[in-house]
Formats: sequence, structure tokens, C-alpha cells
Amino acid sequence: MIPAPSLFPSLHLELPAWMADYVSKASQWTTTREQRMAFVVSLARMNIQHGTGGPFAAAIFRLDTHELVAPGVNLVVASRCSVAHAEIIAMALAQQRIGSHDLGAPGLPRHELVTSCEPCAMCLGAILWSGTGQVVCAARDSDATEIGFDEGPKPLDWVSALQQRGIVVTQDVLRTEARQILQDYANQNGIIYNSRQGFAP
Amino acid sequence: MIPAPSLFPSLHLELPAWMADYVSKASQWTTTREQRMAFVVSLARMNIQHGTGGPFAAAIFRLDTHELVAPGVNLVVASRCSVAHAEIIAMALAQQRIGSHDLGAPGLPRHELVTSCEPCAMCLGAILWSGTGQVVCAARDSDATEIGFDEGPKPLDWVSALQQRGIVVTQDVLRTEARQILQDYANQNGIIYNSRQGFAP
Repeated sequence: MIPAPSLFPSLHLELPAWMADYVSKASQWTTTREQRMAFVVSLARMNIQHGTGGPFAAAIFRLDTHELVAPGVNLVVASRCSVAHAEIIAMALAQQRIGSHDLGAPGLPRHELVTSCEPCAMCLGAILWSGTGQVVCAARDSDATEIGFDEGPKPLDWVSALQQRGIVVTQDVLRTEARQILQDYANQNGIIYNSRQGFAP
Repeated sequence: MIPAPSLFPSLHLELPAWMADYVSKASQWTTTREQRMAFVVSLARMNIQHGTGGPFAAAIFRLDTHELVAPGVNLVVASRCSVAHAEIIAMALAQQRIGSHDLGAPGLPRHELVTSCEPCAMCLGAILWSGTGQVVCAARDSDATEIGFDEGPKPLDWVSALQQRGIVVTQDVLRTEARQILQDYANQNGIIYNSRQGFAP
């Protein structure tokens, strides 16, 4: 009944091939907060155009130098992994790059998560455990739910919940641009991969 | 300023080596719900004993045959990944094994997540997106917070939030045994890896 140990796979998540080339040319995008968000929003659009995932992107930057530490895009369907939201990918790859599970560990520069949409319930918790010091959001929860995505059972005061733990939250940076991508995705009948509302017990 | 694309690592998560041998011998553990939980609780204890992570374990089982689909243990520190909670590992590896991001997809048997502790805010959201149909918990949130772990900003009515989406929740299965592992871990001065309460903005 129990499968052989070899049947337990490992989990391997990596960025789409198109991203490496684009990201390597994007150094002009990272000086201001709006530029960093524009870079992230462009990743969300390219993720749709390349058919590699949902209309969401994120990235971790250093707060001092504004250097890109790791980008992320939604890879849920492509990677067969419901956890593979853009924020999760960016935070996890940033942690792999710096070699710590805590982006806020002593001796490290502070880090900023820039995300094309406010975090879902899962990513909200993941942000807390990641050690990132700031979160910058474009589209609102309501922009995502309007096209059918479920943000999950977030506390109404989720911004306060982060800020009480010392994480600065900035909303509505390039919201219009990010929202348009969500609407374009819906208009193209993109997969609303986590819209399942459950099933009868 | 932007690192070369090759500097963006991939994320690779795999079970500790000790687990394969143990899991392959554990077919007697999976018939009843209490047996499945006892198996999971034993994984949590072994994760401490082997020094491979925090005092938490989980597993995904098929609801019809009670077959183990994938086990998971906390691998946050070992894998340098704050997302690598036991529930995340079990759900993600189960999805890799069945080849879908949705454990509740049409044509699949229903699945059960058995976890040694009630889910934190992140895992609560992840459970929703995973497609699992049932969640069985041992230790309570309060058992984890008593020893210093932070469960994060969960809605007070998190059980209802899951059940409203068709996910059946069962609490307190072998709670005493699972709580003892948490207390033993604290007594050994184990790393409370996500207890960081943030920093001054």
C-alpha cells in the first residue's frame, strides 16, 4: 500500500526560460519604486504572453542598493504546484540566493517585496515568515476577485497585521496598469486556477 | 547591478534521507485516522531527533484507500526556505506525484491532509489552494504559540473558512502526543525559526 520511497518526488521550481534574458536587460528598471513595480508588472504581462502561468509577478529587491535579488512569476499550473504563487517564488529564490531562510536575518541588508497584486491569504502568511521588511502592491484584492480569483480568508486588517510586525506596506503603486493585466487575462479566458470553491464534503 | 541570469537559483526541496527508509516500513500505520496521525506525529519526533528541522510533520493520504501519497516535515532551516513548512512539503510533493496542482481535480480520489499541528496563516491559505478535501490536526495553535512559534494573522473562524469551501476539519486527534513533541523541542532549546516579531521600520 505504501509506495516505494523512490516514488516520493522532490519539488523543483525554476523560473521560465524567457525570464533570464529579459531580466538581464532590465537594469534600468530598478532605481525608483515605480520603476521596480513597472518591471514587476511587465513580468506579469510576459508570463501571460509566454503562456507560463497566471497574471501575477513579484520580485525581491535590496532596500539599500535597489538591486534585484530574485524575480518571481506565478507558476501554479506549469509547475503543478498550488504553492507556486509569484510572491512565494520570489521570496524562496531570494532566500536560496542569500543562503538563509530569513531575509531579515542580522547582518543582511533589508529587503522589499514588490508584487503586482495584494497577497492572498497564503502569501500574506508567507510574507511574515520570509523576513522581508517592506511590501509594495499594485492591484488590490478586489481587482483579483473581480475576475474570479479567490484571495482566501485574509483578516480584514491584514495591512495592520503586517505593520504590527514591523513590515511596511505600500498599496496602489501602478494599480491601474496591474489591474489591466488581470482584466486582459480574464478576457482571454485564462485559467482561474484557484477559483475552485470547494466541493461537497 | 542586475545579477547574471545564472545567479537566479532554482528551488529544490526534498525529504530528508532518513525518511525514505522509515516511510517504506510504515504500512501498518495508515488504516485508521488515529494511526495515520500517529505516523505523522512520529515523523515530527524523528525530524527533531535527526536534526533535520522543526517539530512539525504532515502527510497527504488518499481518502478511499488510506494510501500515503506524500509525507512532509518542516525543512525551513535545513532548506533555507521559510515556506518549507510540513504541510507545504506534503501538499507540494503530493501534487508532484499525481501530476496536478489540484488534489481535488475531477477524476482524482479525494485527499486528506493529516498534520501534527493546526496550520499557520500561510498553510491555512495553502490548504485552500491545494485541493485537499479534509484536514486532520493534532496540536492546537495555542500549543505552538505557548513555546514561541507564531501562527500568524489567521482569521478567528479559520475552521469555518475552510468548511465553507467544502473542506472538512477535524481537531485534537492525538493532541496530547503532538503537544508533548513541541514541549520537548522547546526544552531542548530548538530553533524557533519563525518567532521573529519583525523589526523597526
